[in-house]
This record gives sequence, structure tokens and C-alpha cells, in this order.
Amino acid sequence: MGKTTRKLEVSSPVPADIDIANSVEPLHISDIAQDLNLGPKHYDLYGKYKAKVLLSVLDAIGGGQDGYYVVVGGITPTPLGEGKSTTTVGLCQALGAYLDKKVITCLRQPSQGPTFGIKGGAAGGGYSQVIPMDEFNLHLTGDIHAITASNNLLAAAIDTRIFHESSQSDSALFNRLCPSNKEGNRRFSDVMLRRLKKLGIEKTNPDELTSEEVTKFVRLDIDPSSITWKRVMDVNDRFLRKITIGQGPDEKGMVRETGFDISVASEIMAVLALTTSLADMRERLGKMVIGNSKAGDPITADDLGIGGALTVLMKDAINPTLMQTLEGTPVLVHAGPFANIAHGNSSIVADKIALKLVGPGGFVVTEAGFGSDIGTEKFMNIKCRYSGLKPHCAIVVATVRALKMHGGGPEVVAGKALDHAYVSENIALVEAGCVNLAKHISNTKAYGVNVVVAVNAFSTDTEAELNAVRKASMAAGAFDAVICTHHAHGGKGAVDLGVAVQKACESVSQPLRFLYPLDIGIKDKIEAIAKSYGASGVEYSEQAEKQIEVYGKQGFSSLPICMAKTQYSFSHNPKQKGAPSGFVLPIRDVRASIGAGFIYPLVGTMSTMPGLPTRPCFYEIDLDTSTGRVIGLS
Amino acid sequence: MGKTTRKLEVSSPVPADIDIANSVEPLHISDIAQDLNLGPKHYDLYGKYKAKVLLSVLDAIGGGQDGYYVVVGGITPTPLGEGKSTTTVGLCQALGAYLDKKVITCLRQPSQGPTFGIKGGAAGGGYSQVIPMDEFNLHLTGDIHAITASNNLLAAAIDTRIFHESSQSDSALFNRLCPSNKEGNRRFSDVMLRRLKKLGIEKTNPDELTSEEVTKFVRLDIDPSSITWKRVMDVNDRFLRKITIGQGPDEKGMVRETGFDISVASEIMAVLALTTSLADMRERLGKMVIGNSKAGDPITADDLGIGGALTVLMKDAINPTLMQTLEGTPVLVHAGPFANIAHGNSSIVADKIALKLVGPGGFVVTEAGFGSDIGTEKFMNIKCRYSGLKPHCAIVVATVRALKMHGGGPEVVAGKALDHAYVSENIALVEAGCVNLAKHISNTKAYGVNVVVAVNAFSTDTEAELNAVRKASMAAGAFDAVICTHHAHGGKGAVDLGVAVQKACESVSQPLRFLYPLDIGIKDKIEAIAKSYGASGVEYSEQAEKQIEVYGKQGFSSLPICMAKTQYSFSHNPKQKGAPSGFVLPIRDVRASIGAGFIYPLVGTMSTMPGLPTRPCFYEIDLDTSTGRVIGLS
Repeated sequence: MGKTTRKLEVSSPVPADIDIANSVEPLHISDIAQDLNLGPKHYDLYGKYKAKVLLSVLDAIGGGQDGYYVVVGGITPTPLGEGKSTTTVGLCQALGAYLDKKVITCLRQPSQGPTFGIKGGAAGGGYSQVIPMDEFNLHLTGDIHAITASNNLLAAAIDTRIFHESSQSDSALFNRLCPSNKEGNRRFSDVMLRRLKKLGIEKTNPDELTSEEVTKFVRLDIDPSSITWKRVMDVNDRFLRKITIGQGPDEKGMVRETGFDISVASEIMAVLALTTSLADMRERLGKMVIGNSKAGDPITADDLGIGGALTVLMKDAINPTLMQTLEGTPVLVHAGPFANIAHGNSSIVADKIALKLVGPGGFVVTEAGFGSDIGTEKFMNIKCRYSGLKPHCAIVVATVRALKMHGGGPEVVAGKALDHAYVSENIALVEAGCVNLAKHISNTKAYGVNVVVAVNAFSTDTEAELNAVRKASMAAGAFDAVICTHHAHGGKGAVDLGVAVQKACESVSQPLRFLYPLDIGIKDKIEAIAKSYGASGVEYSEQAEKQIEVYGKQGFSSLPICMAKTQYSFSHNPKQKGAPSGFVLPIRDVRASIGAGFIYPLVGTMSTMPGLPTRPCFYEIDLDTSTGRVIGLS
Repeated sequence: MGKTTRKLEVSSPVPADIDIANSVEPLHISDIAQDLNLGPKHYDLYGKYKAKVLLSVLDAIGGGQDGYYVVVGGITPTPLGEGKSTTTVGLCQALGAYLDKKVITCLRQPSQGPTFGIKGGAAGGGYSQVIPMDEFNLHLTGDIHAITASNNLLAAAIDTRIFHESSQSDSALFNRLCPSNKEGNRRFSDVMLRRLKKLGIEKTNPDELTSEEVTKFVRLDIDPSSITWKRVMDVNDRFLRKITIGQGPDEKGMVRETGFDISVASEIMAVLALTTSLADMRERLGKMVIGNSKAGDPITADDLGIGGALTVLMKDAINPTLMQTLEGTPVLVHAGPFANIAHGNSSIVADKIALKLVGPGGFVVTEAGFGSDIGTEKFMNIKCRYSGLKPHCAIVVATVRALKMHGGGPEVVAGKALDHAYVSENIALVEAGCVNLAKHISNTKAYGVNVVVAVNAFSTDTEAELNAVRKASMAAGAFDAVICTHHAHGGKGAVDLGVAVQKACESVSQPLRFLYPLDIGIKDKIEAIAKSYGASGVEYSEQAEKQIEVYGKQGFSSLPICMAKTQYSFSHNPKQKGAPSGFVLPIRDVRASIGAGFIYPLVGTMSTMPGLPTRPCFYEIDLDTSTGRVIGLS
């Protein structure tokens, strides 16, 4: 494609990720922008290697045609990950630097929690990385920090509102909420008018409210036990999972049990990922439900008067961040919901901007977290439903390692040496594991897209093993299956994948078929998804039953479903590898993200706040203070 | 001075701050940078109106001569504030746009807590503001978010370490902290070598440690009751003041009482404000003390293995942010410790860079929070002690309103209408209140600097009242006292102040005289400061006595003192206006910020986490989604 791409010289064995990343001098990001025909008014620089592409660019180029849209999912992974980000980046390096296509990679922003915990960074790996990898993994352009700030401002507003309502009369509350100005006049702020409208009160002059209307207006009467809004932090801090707040002497004993989630689990992250414009974001943030009144009515951020302030805090975060790959192709980084506890896809706005920027014949490759049961399912049924977009091709990334595990290989544990089975040839194990791959292929094909399998090859894989995967893929209905070596060779190692993807995009495909329509009941939707996992049925806890009833009454049952489920199995049990069937899926609880726009059942117990191991990654991380370079980041 | 300055057209009455701010189209920040002779390699753009000036610029221009250094303090304020930031900005607009001087304003970054709470923004006001004021007040370039992230990563590391130590044998801990690599070798990371050195163990090969040495190395044995490190959040969240953590079932009942401070109270904020280089920051962050071992030894961030990671998180935050005033003069925004609970001054690095950039004959005007007993005292005894800089002139900002309060006027309450006494002439009240001003003048003069009083005039002040302030100032030994109208007129309203400041800087001044030397006892230092307040003595709680003894034993008694005291009185009692004397100052507790480099006594009860009022500022704040403009920010 552009003037900015270059081909890498590679070394063998492959050096450490940070050493490869540091060996390439990134281009000034304005060169990357220029190559995309982005003028300076369409982006804001954040240092030399990052820029925020302004949403307003859609007004300028929104009339143009879209490029091809490719989503990258995977098979059920080991805890080590199967190189999905790496494959996404490698494919784009191939399309851009070797096949002369316009291409943009759309990735999620990584959470800093895992970066300093067990996992390390998320910029890809080997010769397929986003650079500078330290900037990618740390702070970026502040979007997650903005989410943390806005999430927690709302949390503070909830408890403080309960506090003030508990000690003040209706008229005192009203006088404070609508104080007289110097001239003795009082007025409603705009956000108060939204609440009045919701209450069916048409008046706009505070002095005209009846005392009953005053009471309705000032008393949110939040039921503390109904509050679902938690505080968040982008740190692996397990001791905040369950806490008691309000124990200070000035808080008058209004203690309450609550907890912190990791920031990427915030509903505001989901809003960012699913919104389509500033105006849409303002509406979604305002209608987020934080709990119920004692009478059972949902209480929203706008009822608390805070939807506008949250939008102001998020106004820059809505602009995706432009970066580059090692081979100089453009990357848009935006939003970062985890795929197990949230919907696991980068933002709609990033994909939309990218599709216009590459234009007809160009490619946008976007990653969906974990396996097809997790990220891809939510990509199709939630993200595409809201965006109106349809992918031309879906990739399923597989590794011999993970397939061996599914075939019955020993447990794979992060931080421990791999069993012999994973580093020596064992074709039978691979073949047995391909049931997992086959199910991911057929589940993905069911949406009406062509499926290309990318086998992310490791140096220990043998040709016979790799061929077994190819064969199984084709037998399961894949459009194509390609062995890739982009980790070792950069874009050059994914050229065949690029060619296959191009063919898949160009070939006739069917309309997007969702797994379920929206206008059926919450349970019917949950059951449709459970069936796609292989479940024979669904079992609801009492709490889940109650919540489904509540959301039905509150009018939220037509929303799509976002399952919070382990990524380590098609089922709820991470130990069930391969393609389990006949299990009954347990729904422990059902929650709702009304602003983001989905109902999320909790399948079993999912932690929403990771912990730190005995020896976190941070032990190796430091700054070379003479050069300013980050060392030890992996 | 430069080509970027312009003179404002002003309206009367003065419009709302946000309307004035929005009426001026800011210059591209690269124009401001160019005017300071900053080349593109010396700064990183953050959008069009903000840039981070890289610390490396000091290497390039560090050999040049400094400009004049002016510190702006105030009298004891009302809760409404007396316009110290506004005066700081107005003076610089006068010096730059009207008196043709090179000038840089150095301001603190405001906390987002008060912005959404009671106070609103902190960009100055009227025709003396930093623009764009929304960017100034929100996120800025992410420094406070970086502080929050690093503070809380350390907090998570503390509790998790206690957790892991509680369940593992010495050898299990050692094997996890120093695992074998593929070749069966093990090594210490660099930060582990720091701990070994501290323990007096000279070995560098893990396999050579004796079992006693292994125990010493792996067991921090933190005493949970000694932990002084709290979590932080940049939000007014009073329900986090006192909390219980660790109540989740997986944390095995390791519950602990703790709390959140507002982020600007973090020791990491103090480190940022007092550090002088990347290498210095690395050392300070590593030696921050989080509590003691059960044997009473201080436990540091580097003992937890995290000093390097904290530095990496703070590596961009060390670069000050360049912005501009309404009249196009440059502003450096950096660090934001509150002056009552912390040391209340912007950063040493910002001031040092600014002094070189303006060069001889130029001016750097830096603000110190609240009255001379608070911000200025800490500016002199802590900040100047660490920077080696000396101010050429100190400004004391006074208002007729505050002086009337000190003279016996009725209480001034934020959000309530002002009493008649404050909006009609009452010379006797003003004259009586000047005892407060006189004490601030003499206290500031005691450091050996020329003091200029800036009377920030309000439209309701009469000439006779303003003249009474001038007269009292001169009688108290001020170098000059000037009536200013920069709020209504921009730089033009502070031209006389600019001329007076220039004269004060050019006139002979004495060497900087600290209030106390470092090599006396902690109590002697506390008493020297108390005496400067007017106290007849100091009273220590049992807890304070105990802590002073502990810090003495731990070798920390030679640090300077940072008093945490109310800003509303020279004494500990906010109701004591004027210039109280003969009181006994109570020291409730004594804490230490070893990394930042000071001991901080708590004078009475100071809240380190503000709360939200019934009607927080956020009710008015929203985004105009058609233009992307922030509305309602004050």
C-alpha cells in the first residue's frame, strides 16, 4: 500500500519482544496518518508515535465506500494464549507490506492490570507487533483512565446522594438542588429536565411544582441493596473484590458492602466500544442503570444529574488511537472490554473509521477476544447488530499446542514449563483435538461468513502436525486453512494467509444470520447461545430467575445477550476441553448494562478483578534513566 | 515578548469564565513553543493546545542563566478563594503582553475532584485564565491519572505480598520470586539486588544464599497495622475515607481497615513535585516507605520489587505541560499537591525549565497554595531547599472581602449569598482585618525576599477600602502594594503590579533564610514553624510522640517538615481569623513521606478525601454534542 510500509530483516532464533520492538525506529505517526489521507485537522498528536483520529473524520469521508471487514477469533485457548493478536498484526503486515493492500488493524487497548500482573503486554509478539509497545501497553492516550474517572465519579454520586437524601427534608433537598440565584430566581439544569420528563412532569419552572412533584423529583430513594454499580480500578487488586465502605465517623454509619472491578469491566468501557457518535454516547451514558428505587424503578445516571459530566470526561476517549505495526502499517487501538466478563471487541467507531479510510478493496482486520464462543459470538450478535456492519471473512486462529490440549494433553499452566507432549510430534493428539477447531469453524460459519483457519505455527510443530490441522479444517467446512509463521518472519510469514483472506472476502457470501432475534424472551436468547456451546439445557439460580423477571418488567427484555463465561471451554467448566456436549449451563445471576445495551448472564463464577501472583511482571520492569527507555516489559 | 501575545478586548460586566475562555481562539501550542525557542524535539504535542515539554530540554539549555523567580502566595483566604491563580495569570499577561517581558506562568494541575464538586475549575478567572480551560481542568495530559495508577499498583502489591507470605514457606516464596529458567538457572532481578544490598547481603547468585539469608530476603513480614500507604482516587468520594478490604471469600479472611485519599494527596504527587530528574525520581519512588516490618524496620517500594514499574508509569508525567493564557503567554502546568494536606506547590522541574527558557531579564511566576503559613512556607523550606532556587520577589494576594472577614465580618460560606458587609463600604472592618495581611507580609519577608502586595480588586470594593489595604501593606514592610483589576481587564489590569514586581526583582535582596535548619530534632522544627504561626507552644498526642520517636530511630529526623493544617487560620482552628497568638498547636499524628522527602505532622483533623455537596457542579456540565464543546464548566 502506502509509502510508510517496509519489510523487516528477521533474526533466528526470534529475540525477545521488547528487543524487536526497540530495534525498529517507529515512523512519526503523522506519516502514517498522511498515508491514510488524514489531514492534520482530522487527528490530534499524542507525542510522536500516537495520534487520536477524530470522530469528525466520518463527516468528511462518511460518504465513501467501505473496505473488506475481517474479524479474527480463535479456538478455545490455553492459558498462554494462541497468538490471536500476533496473527491479527502479522496478517495486516502481510496485506500492507507484501500484498500492497490498504489495510488497518483494529485492536483493543490492553488493561494495565495484566501488564503488571502475569500476562505482560498485548501488542502482539515476535516480528508481528504494534510499536512502540511500551506506549501501547501503558496509559496509551488515557482512555481507560477516563473510564476509571467517570465510572468512579458516578459511584461517588450514588453514595453521596443516598447520604444527602437521608438527612434532608424534601424542601431542603429541593432548595439545594435548585437554589435561587442573586435575583431570587431558580431554574432546572438541563439534566434535571430529563428527570422531570421521565417522571411525566412537563413543568420547567421549579416554582410551579406541587409538593408531590417536588418529592418525586428530589427523592431517588435508591435501595442500597439493589446497587449494581461498582467502583473500578485498572490494577489487579484482589483485596478490593469485596469491601465495606462508609466506615468514617462523618458518614454516620451508612456502611455498605460493595467492591471494585477492573476498569475494563466497567459498563462505560462497553458504552465506548458500542457507541456510534458523541450524541449516542451522551444518551447511553445518561441511561445507564445503577440500581433501583425502593419502589423498584430503575435509577439512571441522568437521574443523578451526571450523564453530561460523564460525557465530558469521555469526550476525547471516543476518538480511536492511531499507531503502527513493525512494518509500518496503520493500527487503530480503541476500547478494551475483556471478552469473558464483557463483550470483548474493540470499538464500532474505530472499525467504521477504518473501513472508510481503507475504502473499496482495502482491508480492516479487527480482533474478537478468545474463542468463537466468546469474542466472535458477541462480535456478531452484539457489535454487528449495533453497527449494522457485516464481516466478509472470519478467521479462526489455531495452534498445535492448544489442539493437543483439547485432544487430551496434560494441563497447560502459565509460568510452568510445557509438558513434553507439547514440544514433540504427536499427530494423534492433534487430530483428536481438532473437534474443538471443527466446532469453532461450524459455529462461525453459521453466521453466513467464509471462515479461514490461520494455524499459528511454533518452531516445535512438525509438518505432519500442521497438515493434520489443515486437513481437519477443510473437512469442517473452512474456506481455507493456512500455516503462518508471522511470529518468526513478520508479514512475510502471513502472505499466504493474506491471499486466502482476500479470496474469502471476494467470494460470494451470505447475509449475516444472527444466532437469535431480539424480540424473543431473555431466556430464549440465553438458550439459543447455550445450544451453540453444545449445552443440552440451561439451569437458572433463584437470583437469575428474579433478575430476568425484573428486567422483563422494566422493559429491557429486547436487548441482546452478553454471556460472562470462562474462555477455557465451550461449557462453563474450564476443565471440559474439546467439544463437550450434553451439559446443562448454569446461570448464577443476570445483570444488565442498559447504557451499553445488553443483558449479561453470569455463567458460573467469573472474577471481575484479577489478582497479582507472588512474582508479578513488575519485578523486571524499570526505566533506563539515562535513555528514558522502558526495560523488562514483556 | 513574543509574537504570540495579544491584548484582549474586554466587556463589562465580566462574562462567565467559560464564555470568555470560549471567545478566544487559542494559538496552536507549537506557536507558543516556538516563541520560547523550543524545537519539535523538545516537546510532545497532546492535541493542538497542549504539549509536554521534555525534561531533556534542560540538557540542551541547562547552561544558560536563569530569569527572575517570583512566588505568589496569599493572605488567609475565605472559602471562596481570593483569586491567587487569577492574579498569577493576570500578572503574567501584563508582563508578557503589555511590558514586553519574557514570562512563564507555573501552575499546579487541578484535581478533578473539586472540579466536579463544589469549587469548579482552577484556571484563573475573568480575563485572566489559562485556555482551553476545559482541557486544563480535565485529564490534562494524564499526570494525575498516572499517579493514581502507580499509587494503586503499589497498594495492590502490599496486600498481595502479605497474602502470599501468609500461605507459603520460605523456600516456596524464594522459588516463585527467583524461578529457574528453561536452562535451570535462576537470577535476581535488579530491584531484588537493591533489597539484598539493603539487607547487607552481597551475593548476586540466588543459589548461594544461606537459608537465613533466603528468609531475610523473602519475608518482608509487613505489620498490617503499620501500613501508612493508602489507595487514591481523583474523585470526591467520602464513602471511601474509611473502608474494610479483603472481604472476598478467596482472600481468606485477611480483612484490613484502610481508606482512600484524593490522588493529589499521594506521596507520588509529592515526589513528582519535588524531583529533579528521571534518575532522582527512580530513587525517590523506590525508597517510599509503606509501613514497617513486625520488627520495626521500614519497608520500601523497592523491597516490594516495584520501584522500577512505578517509574515507568510516571515517566511521561515528569514532563510539564505547556499551555497558554488568554493573552497568548506561555504556562507550564505541573503537579498538583493540595497545600493544606500536602506541600502545595507546582514542580521543581517546571520552575527550572521555565527559568532557563525565559533567561536573564525574564520572569517565572509560580503559585504557592493558600496563605504564607501554608504554601509559601513550604515553598521556601521544602521546595527551595530541594531545588536550590531562591525567589527574587514574593507576592501576597489580598482581597478586601477576606480582610473584612479577618476584621470581624460574618462568616463567608461557599454557595451562600455574601453578607451586606462584604458588598458595601466598611473601612473599619478592612483596617481591622489588615492584621492578617501584616502577618503574612512579615512572615514572608523573614525569608529575605521583597514582598509585593497585590490587591485583587472586586467591583464592589471602594477606593477608600483599597487604599486602606495599600497603606497597611506599606506599614507592614511591603516593598510595594498595588491595586489590580486583571479579572475585569486582563493583563492591562495588572500592569502596575508587573512594574512593581520588576522593581522588586531588580532591587538588592538578601540570601534565602530558612525558618529552621535540617539538623535539629523533628520537634524543634515543628516548633519553629508553630512559632511562625503565632503559637505559644506545641502539644503532641501520644501517637505523635510515638511516631517522632520511630522516625528518629529509623534515621529520618533530618528531613524538612510539611505541616498538614487548615488554610483558614494561622492556627489550627479555622474559626480564629486575623492574627491569633498564644494558642497551643495540637499535633494529632506525625507521618513521613520518605520518598518525597519530608515529615508531615497532622495539625488537628484534616480530611484527605473531600465529599460532594447535594448539588455538585456536575449538574451543569454537559457536552454540546453538535460542536464537541464543553458547557457549564465553571
